[in-house]
Parts: sequence; C-alpha cells; structure tokens
Amino acid sequence: MPKVLFRPCGKSISVPRGTELLDAAHISGVAIESPCGGRGTCGKCIVRVTDGEIDSHSLSILPKSAVADGYVLACQTTVQSSDVHVEVPEPATMEGGNFTNGDETYLVRGELLPKKWEFDPLAVKWLIQVPAPQPEDGLSDLDRLKRAIQVEWGRQESLPVDTLRNLFEDVRSMFLDVVVSMGAMRQLSSALRAHNGLVTVTLVRTGKILQVIQVEPGHNADCHWAIAVDVGTTTVAVQLISLTGAKIMATRSAYNEQLACGLDVISRINYAKKPERLQELRARVLRTINDLMGQAARSQEIDPLNISNAVVSGNTTMIHLLLGMNPDYIRLEPYTPTLLEVPFLTAGEVGIAINPDTWICFSPNVGSWVGGDITAGLLCTDLATDSEEINLFIDIGTNGELVVGNGDFLLGCACSAGPAFEGGGIECGMRAAVGAIEKVQVDSETGIAHYATIGNTRPRGICGSGMIDLLANLLLTGWVDPAGKLDRTRESPMIRIMGRSARYIIARGSETENGEPIFISEVDIENIIRAKAAIFSACVLMLDEVGIGFDDVAQIYVAGGFGRYLDLDKAIVLGLVTDVPKDKFRFLGNASLMGSYMVVVSREYRQRQLELSKRMTYFDLSNHPGYMDRYTAALFLPHTDPQQFPSVAEAMAALHRRRQANLSRSKVAS
Amino acid sequence: MPKVLFRPCGKSISVPRGTELLDAAHISGVAIESPCGGRGTCGKCIVRVTDGEIDSHSLSILPKSAVADGYVLACQTTVQSSDVHVEVPEPATMEGGNFTNGDETYLVRGELLPKKWEFDPLAVKWLIQVPAPQPEDGLSDLDRLKRAIQVEWGRQESLPVDTLRNLFEDVRSMFLDVVVSMGAMRQLSSALRAHNGLVTVTLVRTGKILQVIQVEPGHNADCHWAIAVDVGTTTVAVQLISLTGAKIMATRSAYNEQLACGLDVISRINYAKKPERLQELRARVLRTINDLMGQAARSQEIDPLNISNAVVSGNTTMIHLLLGMNPDYIRLEPYTPTLLEVPFLTAGEVGIAINPDTWICFSPNVGSWVGGDITAGLLCTDLATDSEEINLFIDIGTNGELVVGNGDFLLGCACSAGPAFEGGGIECGMRAAVGAIEKVQVDSETGIAHYATIGNTRPRGICGSGMIDLLANLLLTGWVDPAGKLDRTRESPMIRIMGRSARYIIARGSETENGEPIFISEVDIENIIRAKAAIFSACVLMLDEVGIGFDDVAQIYVAGGFGRYLDLDKAIVLGLVTDVPKDKFRFLGNASLMGSYMVVVSREYRQRQLELSKRMTYFDLSNHPGYMDRYTAALFLPHTDPQQFPSVAEAMAALHRRRQANLSRSKVAS
Repeated sequence: MPKVLFRPCGKSISVPRGTELLDAAHISGVAIESPCGGRGTCGKCIVRVTDGEIDSHSLSILPKSAVADGYVLACQTTVQSSDVHVEVPEPATMEGGNFTNGDETYLVRGELLPKKWEFDPLAVKWLIQVPAPQPEDGLSDLDRLKRAIQVEWGRQESLPVDTLRNLFEDVRSMFLDVVVSMGAMRQLSSALRAHNGLVTVTLVRTGKILQVIQVEPGHNADCHWAIAVDVGTTTVAVQLISLTGAKIMATRSAYNEQLACGLDVISRINYAKKPERLQELRARVLRTINDLMGQAARSQEIDPLNISNAVVSGNTTMIHLLLGMNPDYIRLEPYTPTLLEVPFLTAGEVGIAINPDTWICFSPNVGSWVGGDITAGLLCTDLATDSEEINLFIDIGTNGELVVGNGDFLLGCACSAGPAFEGGGIECGMRAAVGAIEKVQVDSETGIAHYATIGNTRPRGICGSGMIDLLANLLLTGWVDPAGKLDRTRESPMIRIMGRSARYIIARGSETENGEPIFISEVDIENIIRAKAAIFSACVLMLDEVGIGFDDVAQIYVAGGFGRYLDLDKAIVLGLVTDVPKDKFRFLGNASLMGSYMVVVSREYRQRQLELSKRMTYFDLSNHPGYMDRYTAALFLPHTDPQQFPSVAEAMAALHRRRQANLSRSKVAS
Repeated sequence: MPKVLFRPCGKSISVPRGTELLDAAHISGVAIESPCGGRGTCGKCIVRVTDGEIDSHSLSILPKSAVADGYVLACQTTVQSSDVHVEVPEPATMEGGNFTNGDETYLVRGELLPKKWEFDPLAVKWLIQVPAPQPEDGLSDLDRLKRAIQVEWGRQESLPVDTLRNLFEDVRSMFLDVVVSMGAMRQLSSALRAHNGLVTVTLVRTGKILQVIQVEPGHNADCHWAIAVDVGTTTVAVQLISLTGAKIMATRSAYNEQLACGLDVISRINYAKKPERLQELRARVLRTINDLMGQAARSQEIDPLNISNAVVSGNTTMIHLLLGMNPDYIRLEPYTPTLLEVPFLTAGEVGIAINPDTWICFSPNVGSWVGGDITAGLLCTDLATDSEEINLFIDIGTNGELVVGNGDFLLGCACSAGPAFEGGGIECGMRAAVGAIEKVQVDSETGIAHYATIGNTRPRGICGSGMIDLLANLLLTGWVDPAGKLDRTRESPMIRIMGRSARYIIARGSETENGEPIFISEVDIENIIRAKAAIFSACVLMLDEVGIGFDDVAQIYVAGGFGRYLDLDKAIVLGLVTDVPKDKFRFLGNASLMGSYMVVVSREYRQRQLELSKRMTYFDLSNHPGYMDRYTAALFLPHTDPQQFPSVAEAMAALHRRRQANLSRSKVAS
C-alpha cells in the first residue's frame, strides 16, 4: 500500500490506492479543515503535493498558478500507487483579511452550505424499469412510462421518512400529475426498447407537476449536471456542478458582451428602447452565458444536454434583458418592472443551451434596484438565518447593493457605483484575470511602483483590487492628495503632467505584454472615488434609517467580483469600507454565484430564498433628501470628515509630519 | 322597411334592416329547418336569393358554384335596404341519400351539436382592468396582472350558477395558479400602459393551471378565433371558427403533402425509418396545415396570431408523424405506439403557426389503428350518447375504420382501404374539387359516358363519388363484369384494349382541361374493388364478433372525405355498403373535422370524447383467422354471394335477361 507523509508535522500512514488525501489526514490525526464536508466548495482543505502520483479533481477548480505549484484540494484528490508527500499549510495562510474570490474557491462558512441530506435539486434522475408492452393492453409507451414512474414514487424508500411522507402528500394533492415533454416523448420508443425497458428518466419536480424532460436508455443516473449562473452588468460567471455529491467541477467568467452597448444599467436601458436593440442585448448576454457554459462543459467532457438544472441570478435589469423584456419602466417612476419573481421557464424559451425542456430557476428580485443577485448572495450570510444579531451585506459591483437586518427585518437599497472596480471605464482597467496587476507598492521617495500580477506574467492591465491597493498606497505616500489629484510639487519619473490632467505610470511600456505603458489617470481616480463614495454613503444612510451605527452591526459581509484579493486595510484607507475592527468583516467573493450554487443543489434553499425576498423591504435612496449630501461628503480620500476614519487620519497626520520634517531638513541642507 | 318575399309559398313580411332571413322566415311562418340553431354549421337553411340586396356571411362557407347561383345560408344572411326575393327549396332537396360533404356544409343532427350554453373553449378572452402601478407597493406588472385576473374570477357572474360553483372548486383545489407565458410577459409593460390598464387577456384553462398566453391593450375580446384540423393520410382539412357564436367562417382542404412519400400509412411508416425522413414528413404535413390555415385566415382578414384554440384529429400514425415521433412500433407486434392520448402541447412546440403559446388539443387515439379522427367523428353520432340502440359508424378514408356499439359498449376496428376513394393510386383520380367528375351516366348500348363536374367546368379528373357512380353504372349496363373486367365482347368507342389490360374513356382529350383523356383502367377498378372489399368484410366480421347482423343495427353512419355526393344506391350496387333499408343510413361527410369543431368550441365535448376513447375496445382484424376469407369473398361486384345484395342481384339478373333477349333479337335479325 502506498504511504502518505504529511509535512511539516511528519505524520505518515499507509492507505489503499484510491483513498482521499482528506481521509488519510483524518485517520493519521493531521488537522485539515473541511467545513464544506469534502465537496470542493470551501477551498479550506488546500494542500501541496510535492512528491508522488495522485488523481485530483481539483485541477480544474483551483487557479492554474496554484495547480502549477502542486496545490490540490485534499477532498478532491486520491492516492494512487506511489508514496505521496503532502505539505499542509498553516491554518493562517487562508485567513487575515485577504480572501480568494478568484474564479474558483469560496469562503462561505460551512454551516451555511446545504448539508448532504439537503441535496435535492429541482430536476432529478431516476433509474426505472418499465414493463414490456403487452398485446391488447391498450397502453402506449407513454402510458407505460407514466405508470412505472408512479410505481417508483412508492419505492423511494432510501429517502428519510419525513421526506417520503412529504412526497406522498404532494402525490395526494396533485394525483401524481406526470407530464412528459415533447423532446422526451420523441426519445421514448427507442429508449424503452434498447435495454428491455431499463431507462434513466430526468424529472423536474414542482409542487403541482412532475415533468419528465429526458428518457435515456439504460443506467445513466450518475451523469447529472447543473449550472449556476451569475449575470452581472459587467461580468458573467458560470459554474458547472456535478450533482453526484454536489461538487463544483468548473467555473468560468468573462465580461458581459453587452458591455459594448453601455457600461452601466441605465445606459443599457436606454440602449434597449428600440425593440431590435433589446433583441441584440438579449442575444449578447445569451452568447456570453452559452460560451462560458460550453467552456465549462468541455473541460469536463460532458454534453450540455446532460445539464438539467440551472439557477440564474442577476439584477432586475439584467434579468429583463436576458428575457427580452422591456426594461424601460424600471427606471421610470414609480419604478415598476415587468416581473420580480420570475416564473419557471424552459431553457429553450430562455435560450440557454442546456437540456431545452428543463426549467430555469431565477433568483427572485425584490425591486427595480435590488435583484436576484442579492437574494442569492444573502444565502451566504447570517442574514438568511433567524439570527438576532444585526448584520450588514455589501455587494460591490457595477451597482452597489446593501442589505441590513436580522431574523426580524431586512432592509435593502442600491446605489450606482459604476463598473470601475471591475475594470470598466478605467483606461487600463481589466478583470481579475491572468496578467492583471493586483498588488502595487509605491516608493514614497521616488514614486516608483512595484507590482505583482495574477499568474506572475507580464502585466496587461490593472484590476479592481490592484486599483484599491495602488490608490491607497499613493495616498499614504502623499503622491495623491485627499481630492484625488497627483502631486505636481515633487518630481517622479512615474508622473506625467498632460495640461490640466496628469497620469501615474504603474508599468513602463518595456515591461508590459503589448509594449504600451499601464497607467492610472486623474479621471480614472475620480471614477474610483465616485464608486467608493456611492457605496459608503448608501451604507451610512441606510444604517441611519434603521437608527444604528456601524458599531451595532455584528458582521459586515462584503461580496463582489472585483478582484481575487481585497486588502481590507487599503479599502479602509480609501474610505470604501468603514474603519471598524477587522474581525467584523467576512469576505464572500462572488456571493451571487455561490448562492446560486446553493439553490441549484437544494430546493430547500430555493424556498429560503423566496422567503428572504418576500420579507425584504426596499429602501429608495434616489428620492432620499439626505443622500446627495452624504455622497458629496464621501468624494474625498478617505472622507471630508477624517474623524470617521481615525486610523487613516492618524497615518495621514504622520505622513504630513514626516514630510514637514523632510522639508525642514532639505531647507537646512541647502 | 324592406319587404321579404318567400317563394314558392308567396308569404311576405316587412322587417327592419339587418334582420336575418331565418328570423324573417320564422316570423312569417315559412318553414326553414335549422337544426344547428343558426350557426351556419348544418347547412339545412340554404335558400336562394333571386332579387334584392343582402349581406351574407355564408359566401365564404358555401361552394363558389352555389354562391354564383345566389344560394346563401338564411341564418348567415341579413336584409339590407331593398326588398328581397327568396326561394325556399323543397325540404327533399337536401335529403334522399345524397349528402353534402364538400368542403363546407354538414349534416350532423342539430341535437348532437354543442348548445349555446356549452360554448366553452379551452382558451377564452377576458377584458380586465388592471389597477395602476403604485410607488413602493412592491408589485411588478406581472403581479398586478395576476391579481386582476384573480379578481375577475370572482366577477364571472354572467355564468350559470353551476358553472360558477365548479369554477370556484377549481380555484380552491389549485389555489388559482395563474401562469403567464413568456410571449405574454413580453407584451405586458406596453399593453398595461396603453389604455390605462384596460387589457384583453387570452387564457388557457385546464383543471390545474390558468395560463395567460396573450395580453392585448384595450378591448379586443371579440377577435377570438379557433381552428379545427383533420389530418388525413390523403387529405388535410382546416376549418376556421369565430368563437363569437362558434360560427364556421371558412374551410379549406388539400392533399397531404406527405403523399409524395407514400400513398398509405404503411409506406409512410417505412419512409420514416430514417430520422431525417421523419423530419421531412413532419415538415410536409405542417406545411400543408399551415398553408390551409393561412388561406382560411386571409379569407377572413385575420392575423393567425389571433387564433388561440385548436383541435387536431388524425389517425395514430398521422399524429406521430406530425409530432416527429417514431411511428415504427405502430406496425410491429404488439403494435404499441409512443402515445395514444396526446398531452397538451404548445402550438410553438407542435409547429402550427397560430399563437405559439396556446395549447393544441389532440383528439385521443384508441389504438394503433383507431385514431383521433374516429373519436372526433363519433361525436357526430349517437354512439357518443347513452343510446340503447346499437349503431354502426363507418369512416371511409385511406384507412377504413369501423365502430359498433351503444351506451354500454363500443368496439372499433380498422382496415386498409387504400387512397382510391380520395383519388389516390388511380391514374386519373383527383380530390373532390372543382373540375372533378362526380357523376357519370353510361349509355347501355354505346357505352358512351355523360358526366357532370364539380363547378360545371371542363373535367380535370375523377373523384371518389364519380368513381362509385361510374363503376356502378358500368356494372348495371354490363360494360363491366362482377370481376371488374371491361366487356371485350362488344365494341364501344370508349373502351381501349391495350394487350392484357383495358381502359374505359370517360372524357375524350378534346373535352378536358389539359387535352388529355380521362379514363379508368382495369387496374384502377381492381384498386376500387379492393378498397370496398376491405371495408365491407371488416364490417361483416365485426358485427359477427358482436353476434349481430346488419338488421340489428339501428343507424349506419357513413363518414369520409371522398366526394361531395355519395349515391347510396350505387354504393350498394358495388357492395361497398350493405343492402338494408336506406333510411338506416346517415351521412356525415368529414365527421373528423366536424367532431374537431365540436371539441374546439366546447370543453364538455372534449370530456365526452375522452370518455368515448377510454370505453372503446380495439378489435384486431389483422390477426383474425376469418378476415382473409371474408375479404376474398368481397373481391367481386357486389359480392361472390349475390344473395347478400338481393336488390343488386335482381337488377343484374334483369340485365342478364335483357341482354339475352337482345342477343336473341340480334340473332333473329341477322
């Protein structure tokens, strides 16, 4: 039997071939956290294999750079025939304010994820034996299939007793209404005769109907897939999930192809005024989704027609555009959209290229400006539980959305941040993908930047987390003033004055992939300041409305797809988030996508989400008299009132003192 | 006020402009039959207007030749400003063995038709007022629409109390599940705002769901249409119905475009073995249906999208091909089709170019060889009632189907007649359309034919009724012998001997439209004999099975689309139908189409049809040892056993005596 050696502790154990590294660790007493229960969703069991042969399903889940370094998820990796050396990271490596949002791993608390017994997608696969046709029994293939499904209901004995009883209540109330889709009916005659009546049926279950959407010959119940889709104004992400164990097998994201038609929601709504342009926007986002879905499916070598569950989350405008529905009344008083809770629609109707007969489930929208991305994201937080503590949820995207509440109340609002944090509307901005500058140090004397890129490649642009790091460091080194202007009083090779405007060079042309310099202009800085001001002022106003301050909030959940790492200290320096103890913050990454995952694997979570959406009250900022004042006050780094950010105020004061001292020294020297 | 003068009785009456001729007749005491209750469906109120100005809706219903002669339906025609002279035909003109099947009028007994209070199509139109959107009420357009529909349920007070109570039981059992189709949702935002929330909604109602398929701005509830479709192996017919009063407004029929791929069901099934050919057959029949539907819609100047009810009837194979489902197992033991009762499918899924979101209702099939055309046709007979008398239903099409029974039992069977009676497989055969020879006299001495065509035009071919008339007269004049061979012993300019075969010229090339002669060959005659033998022997065998004879049958209903007039005497001469008192026969024309009409205007009739289909037993002729003997015995004119047709036997004997006498005379003369 192969031996597994764990480092740095030095424990080792011999295990049979095929044993999971996570199990080997547990048996040998090596502590590896696994809050998601070994499903490859939380990313906490990451380890590094330095020697030996393994078989890992996490290779497509982790970032390529991590894979290249030998990192795997212990729960997704099995020992093969040779001995294996495993490095277990210190627990702290995944903590400390940074979070992986990235494309792949998530930091949702394990107890918030669906448990194994809650795995219960809308569409399930059953293996059933359909009796052979009999002469003159007067039964068609369809009749025989329906009867066999009715019998199978009775046989679901592996289910817990409670579930079984509930199923039968369903049955009684609806007299087991089995409906078979046209596509499935067309498969019927050959499928029923290929393996003597043994078929795998895919069924969509709702309260009232049991719809057969696929009939495959023989045993194919293990080939059962789902997708979770987050449709952002700027970025679209698709996650492919194997429903055997609810494992995330691949995640892909890309810019929403609608970006060419407007950077934010309002410009898209304006663009959609002509019916043919509405159709164009619909086609564009469908192309983005279907491309990503196709990439994910190819990575697992599956046929998209085997995907029979899908949950789509997005803001209210994105969902209207995706469905080809006029979004105009979303932005006109009294802000009444065509729909909030989207009924089940077939994939064929919606245009998502999975099994066309299956039903797409949309995360419910709450109002014109608080959409399904938020009701999905909230599932990743204690706001979805009956907690008595008040929590705050902030989703930083092209629209910023905020929700405050507990088990008793939920108040939600939205503000327009713009696409800056996702790289949109910034001259050298880009998504958090390979080649994006994500960390920037600034030399306080020379102003020269030292940066790191995702994938350690030559830089191609700067992503949201890079912008935050850069701008905070420019402020702390005095190269940018609180109004966002570059320092024209000192000379630096990195600052170029161009008339009334100026730009800061992060990487020279000689260092970049395409030979062009990467810079940030004062106009870019203004956009970033407006984005952070919109979010911060909405936050302050909403808490005021509830009559509480930041100190009364137990946890602050931050979601958003603007970078793989957000440095909390730097976000505070900019005044994007408030200056409270850092242990209050919980980072979620793309919470909308993760919430969609939860809903797609568990109907129970769908129910929870519907209840959330019903008890949330929408708070309209745009008509609030106090919003503009608070917004204007926040158009400063960190804020016009520095006392709201005492730690930043102190650092700025120290900088000022240092510079005054330097100035005196240089005067003396001269 | 204009005066209406009725002839030949001479009664007259002054009536206001706009009065229906039927009402004018009733008031003045002129007897005009109107069993269908004035809906333009039974054709019994046909009259001829010889003078004066009228406004008639029957112009598109009646044959053009009749319209040209001034015929109108009294129930569809109103008096205008001038005096009107009306000729009322003798009651006998519509009786006496002949029946109009034609394209347009029907002879279904009035009491079998849906009554006014039974008008209740699957999809209805409601005019509703949707309250205006309110700020911060949290309701979307969709929510507001659903609520308004719920309120409207409560307001349906014009319905009879029983219906209202039933509706509310529905509601309770399903908690009023209002579902809105994607297409209707897309119309919502503009429709709700065009007339201050006044909209016309089209709703499909089934036991469990109330589905909104269309939302139109303002009042458009009167523009509500349905189609009834009969998909025959040879001929397809489409009827357009205005649901305001359930009036038939246009009927169109044409050959099924699938004919190019095989004349009968078996050859179509063989053709469909390759998937792409199955698709081809599907496309062909859809093209035929959609062309006819388009013609009918254009004749009434309506948009096919305003058609939101449809009932389709056809044999089991035709329905499989229409739905793109493999028909192969229909003809393979144990003859198990994919489906018998077709679930509701949307028009979009099926491919019929009416409102794509509405649901198509298919007449239920009973077995592989007794299809929905029969369960539709039976609605036109007492077999659909709880009558104690035993009745017989014969549908003469490419497949012959027979049903015998009463309120207690129903037994159905099928035989393959071939397309001869619809003009298929006959060299000069054609459908009963303008230019078809429908009546032929034969001179017993010279053999020369005197014929009449539909529309009194130059002949283009011969239709089923023409063939029956011709062949019976050829037999009765001795030009054809009981084996179907032409008389080679006498000379006639109309008989051409061509080696071992011979043909009979009906019309010379100089008389016909295309300059080619119209004839019937001995091979054609064999086909006709095989067709009639199949039907007659099936009839005899099925009655044997039940243990009764023709004398025990109260009424014999004959349906089929093979001609506008069937001469019963001639049908008996050929041995197609049995030699019993003629008053036992009831002619129905295209009963499948008429039954589809009944189902499309009334859900009650749909229910009746489902019950019919469930209580019918299928009797498999093909495996019955006695069938082949009886079939072979019937391959003679009228039959190998002439005693089964005493009146024909007597006529033949008289002919024989006459010819013997003539022969003697000529011998004497020579």
